[in-house]
Amino acid sequence: MSERTRIRRLPEKAASTRADLEAVLDAARVAHVAFVHDGSPVNIPTACARDQDRLLLHGSSGSRMMRELAAGVPVCVTVTLLDGMVLARSAFESSMHYRSAMVFGTATPVAAEEKVAALRAMSEAWLPGRWATLRPPTSRELAATLVLAVPLTEWSVKVSDGPPEDPAEDLDAPVWAGVLPVLTRYGEPVPAPDLRGGPPFPAEAATWSIG
Amino acid sequence: MSERTRIRRLPEKAASTRADLEAVLDAARVAHVAFVHDGSPVNIPTACARDQDRLLLHGSSGSRMMRELAAGVPVCVTVTLLDGMVLARSAFESSMHYRSAMVFGTATPVAAEEKVAALRAMSEAWLPGRWATLRPPTSRELAATLVLAVPLTEWSVKVSDGPPEDPAEDLDAPVWAGVLPVLTRYGEPVPAPDLRGGPPFPAEAATWSIG
Repeated sequence: MSERTRIRRLPEKAASTRADLEAVLDAARVAHVAFVHDGSPVNIPTACARDQDRLLLHGSSGSRMMRELAAGVPVCVTVTLLDGMVLARSAFESSMHYRSAMVFGTATPVAAEEKVAALRAMSEAWLPGRWATLRPPTSRELAATLVLAVPLTEWSVKVSDGPPEDPAEDLDAPVWAGVLPVLTRYGEPVPAPDLRGGPPFPAEAATWSIG
Repeated sequence: MSERTRIRRLPEKAASTRADLEAVLDAARVAHVAFVHDGSPVNIPTACARDQDRLLLHGSSGSRMMRELAAGVPVCVTVTLLDGMVLARSAFESSMHYRSAMVFGTATPVAAEEKVAALRAMSEAWLPGRWATLRPPTSRELAATLVLAVPLTEWSVKVSDGPPEDPAEDLDAPVWAGVLPVLTRYGEPVPAPDLRGGPPFPAEAATWSIG
């Protein structure tokens, strides 16, 4: 743990194991990537997937942001999942349930010869089994895609998942208290308007999770 | 629109009206606040709520991050809502549905005499009607809470909500294509273990939305 990953606020919510970190990153589909551009903070949302000991991001080779990240500027990549609203007897004690992870480091471009494997790892993290049903990427597509890896070396994780913690003097307040869970799930699939013939919705979707 | 809020990548996904911005911010409960600390980017998730023409954030007066923000460092506050996985016939065309908003500026502390109104606005944005059922904040609680406002003056919004856009040569691939929506909703409320007597789950919850 470095000085900047030591959790100062609500340290009782700090989760500390590698498994905690991986669970949060694996549940996330979107990361917020902060970096400094011309002295000012920029904070870009982008798809993310963990692959072993690194967090993978990808985007267009033509993206100014991706090229700037690939050049090795320091980043702070944060993912957050909202899990519930905590309704205490007072506004002060009310809060939210969440899981969040913060990774500091620099992004390194994945080498050309490893790009297909990295893209497959991202696809498999999100939609296991789908990659094998798709045609391979073309060389043009690979050239148009930049994949970045941020090593999971300097990080922190925070999980808030407890009940409201009202002080004793508030417990008799005539107001409901508890947690309103926020659930994230997949809805009914919407076929593409140009879906021809009858490829059925994939059976492997039974293993796809979200949230 | 400033140079840094001009959307360069996928400009067809740029939403441009104030109503678009407000809709995205109003759906979000968590913002990622990026700022520069000792030359490095820091990216903190925190609860957010729009109040008229400003985005409100709050936290502990004792928080180093809150105090640093209150001092007026530039921030880039980004909110993102994931709405779906876009399953194209190729990995390259596959993507995600999302709504995101980015706000640049500096945070200003809400003055002591306006703090209650700002906290009420946050509560009402999240859980309409609940504030009136809670005891008022104490002076100690107000002193322990810092509320920050980021003006909605420099911002961009991006919405991705279309079907997969496969090229003609991929349309006959024997693979399902379409969108797998990601739905966010409230689950069954979980009463606090120390809930005494019978305050029922609040009727006003029927108006509470999420996602």
